[in-house]
Amino acid sequence: MTESTALLTDRYELTMIDAAIRAGTHDRPSVFEAFGRSLPAGRRYGVVAGTGRLLELIADFRFGDAELEFLRQNRVVSDATLDWLAGYRFTGSITGYREGEVYFPNSPILVVESSFAEGVVLETLILSVLNYDSSVASAASRMVTAALGRPLAEMGSRRTGEHSAVAAARAAYIAGFGATSNLEAGRTWGVPTMGTAAHAFTMLFDSEEEAFRAQVDALGASTTLLVDTYDVPHGVETAVRVAGPELGAVRLDSGDLLTLVSSVRRQLDGLGNTATKITVTNDLDEYTIAALAATPVDSFGVGTSVVTGSGSPAAGMVYKLVARQGADGDWVSVAKKSPEKATHGGRKHPVRLLDASGTAVSETIYVGAAAPAVVRGRALHTTLVTDGVADPAHLGHRGVEAARERRATALRELPPEAFRLAAGEPAVPTVYAEV
Amino acid sequence: MTESTALLTDRYELTMIDAAIRAGTHDRPSVFEAFGRSLPAGRRYGVVAGTGRLLELIADFRFGDAELEFLRQNRVVSDATLDWLAGYRFTGSITGYREGEVYFPNSPILVVESSFAEGVVLETLILSVLNYDSSVASAASRMVTAALGRPLAEMGSRRTGEHSAVAAARAAYIAGFGATSNLEAGRTWGVPTMGTAAHAFTMLFDSEEEAFRAQVDALGASTTLLVDTYDVPHGVETAVRVAGPELGAVRLDSGDLLTLVSSVRRQLDGLGNTATKITVTNDLDEYTIAALAATPVDSFGVGTSVVTGSGSPAAGMVYKLVARQGADGDWVSVAKKSPEKATHGGRKHPVRLLDASGTAVSETIYVGAAAPAVVRGRALHTTLVTDGVADPAHLGHRGVEAARERRATALRELPPEAFRLAAGEPAVPTVYAEV
Repeated sequence: MTESTALLTDRYELTMIDAAIRAGTHDRPSVFEAFGRSLPAGRRYGVVAGTGRLLELIADFRFGDAELEFLRQNRVVSDATLDWLAGYRFTGSITGYREGEVYFPNSPILVVESSFAEGVVLETLILSVLNYDSSVASAASRMVTAALGRPLAEMGSRRTGEHSAVAAARAAYIAGFGATSNLEAGRTWGVPTMGTAAHAFTMLFDSEEEAFRAQVDALGASTTLLVDTYDVPHGVETAVRVAGPELGAVRLDSGDLLTLVSSVRRQLDGLGNTATKITVTNDLDEYTIAALAATPVDSFGVGTSVVTGSGSPAAGMVYKLVARQGADGDWVSVAKKSPEKATHGGRKHPVRLLDASGTAVSETIYVGAAAPAVVRGRALHTTLVTDGVADPAHLGHRGVEAARERRATALRELPPEAFRLAAGEPAVPTVYAEV
Repeated sequence: MTESTALLTDRYELTMIDAAIRAGTHDRPSVFEAFGRSLPAGRRYGVVAGTGRLLELIADFRFGDAELEFLRQNRVVSDATLDWLAGYRFTGSITGYREGEVYFPNSPILVVESSFAEGVVLETLILSVLNYDSSVASAASRMVTAALGRPLAEMGSRRTGEHSAVAAARAAYIAGFGATSNLEAGRTWGVPTMGTAAHAFTMLFDSEEEAFRAQVDALGASTTLLVDTYDVPHGVETAVRVAGPELGAVRLDSGDLLTLVSSVRRQLDGLGNTATKITVTNDLDEYTIAALAATPVDSFGVGTSVVTGSGSPAAGMVYKLVARQGADGDWVSVAKKSPEKATHGGRKHPVRLLDASGTAVSETIYVGAAAPAVVRGRALHTTLVTDGVADPAHLGHRGVEAARERRATALRELPPEAFRLAAGEPAVPTVYAEV
């Protein structure tokens, strides 16, 4: 049996359903929307991630005997509500941005149409997934552009919760990273995995040379040898002596990389290992990656900064009721009025407006009806779930690959300002349009 | 069947074992240590969390057919290593700080004694758990002291990965929070759960009054009503009118809380609801909690900042080989020499030295042998796992409660400087002592 995801939920989602069932309003047709009020400080764009993963988690959002027993024992909800939860499965529809799509402030990333109760109960899970995964993808995407085409590997599993690590590997790959250290991300999501050895391996042996020899024996000369356990020039010399001209790469995980990379390149070239690559892995983020652009580094391994969203570990998305039917069956747009948290009511139809050259000029959100046909742009919403059934194009390995392509395509539409690392305004403005 | 945790692992852990098996060194008795080189910027102390959770994950660290098949198909390791992995279970010993204990730079939080291969393969999982959970607990502990005895609830599930949310709720509870919104944390770890309703519930109804009435009907007058969906004074008036003098609390989730809390208190008192409490939940962290100390707020709900470690989402712990036997059976202390990452070799025996009044004066780490009996202090290491079997005192709900008590006890030993929120030095120095 697949593990239930139903208790990965805030208690208030269930007490709201309990009160609504008692009041007879739980079945009111409703529209919920997930969006971010702003991008993380100074970012020019965000990258949507988590959608495909979320759709699979929603399919497992069922209250089994064990979940119901916990709720009963803790008197979380009434018996009537327990009965309703026992029969729960999501039967509504979900529309939204494709995974990998770029987003801006107030982009309506996910729109859930269902009864109030069916939609509200998914709030916590939807936000957990979108907030974490999009935080990682948004940070990772900046690192990828900063690397100017050199490959990046995600190696941050140890710097985030053990299951978040899998999500982070997936999100970074969608954002353009080439591989991950995380094996579960390889199994579950088809992300290419990589990695050879840590300092502990070198120290297991009586000498660095013995360690290198053991590694080359097992993994071949094309492996990556970690050369900074003791002394880098000595490590490089030993690595080349042991592995020969076929040595795949050396890895540097400490020191002043700006100067070290160049000196190691010279040393490798001097030893005849002109094809041996240099990979660096020491507390990198988008800024240090950019700073290394002028060095002969060949690839990057990124840990903490990517799995923690490089300073913004949650994307700041919220999930709001934007419309519902009243007792009379008429739709009512609803909006919260509290000062800094006002929301825009009504069903949205977002379009990325493009100029004649195909460059994005605005994120235009048509409210209440779709954009007129004359508008030059790309409609951003697609159907993700119909009557409770997810479109398989978004699921599994296939969904991940599609998302990775989507991110690459969406980035090509962005104006050059989007790729500045310095803090600033979103690359295009978000505009509301009434049709 | 319990889900295997064995692929929540960096690929290089397995390739190192592969090379070590081939070289015949994988069985060398070894000592690994988990520690943080520093506390997150400016913190005065950290709180160890995740230990009990980790011990349960280690018990599930087994390579089943599905895991082995993935490794085989992807040629991660040789057939000999696959055979070794198939038989893997951790049979070594783990010593460490009790969960909930306070820690400082270089505190040897976890010591793993086993063969090289048995110990190295746990690196990623150990660090994922300790880094995330300790990050949350360390931040949460500061919020608890800033709240000056007023209760806090953890409500950040939506701001971190869906499984990290459960770990965060557990870690915050260990650090002194009183409850969580997260139902799975209630089920799995026995953390008290709480929550009543969100803005969406109010907007589901045709009026705020109808919503409040529905909530009181279902949850009783002692419930907490969210009063800031439209207009706070109007919301408070409606809440009191609907629920009467028994109204449990009102919740404020927006606005300038510094002034709002006082005006809502006056309004409640003026309406005769002197026993109705005020809870606030708007983007709080340790600093805003401290700033609200002078207001008549009764309790706090904290989201993003606690589940993301309030600016330090990973505690920065590392896991290093510190000693191993050589081919001759002699123990060798090993240490990495790279510039900013030097480690102290050898088996550690940490003691919190106390002055005559029982106040901590140093984190003294005896290297190579235990502290002399004359030392006034508290030995910090306890046995967590013996020959592969975890001490049940650290597991499940019982382990969580013990950790929560441990944190409270450990904090009472700290000098007053430890509770300053401003950035500064660790509350006590870490000192190495040779016996």
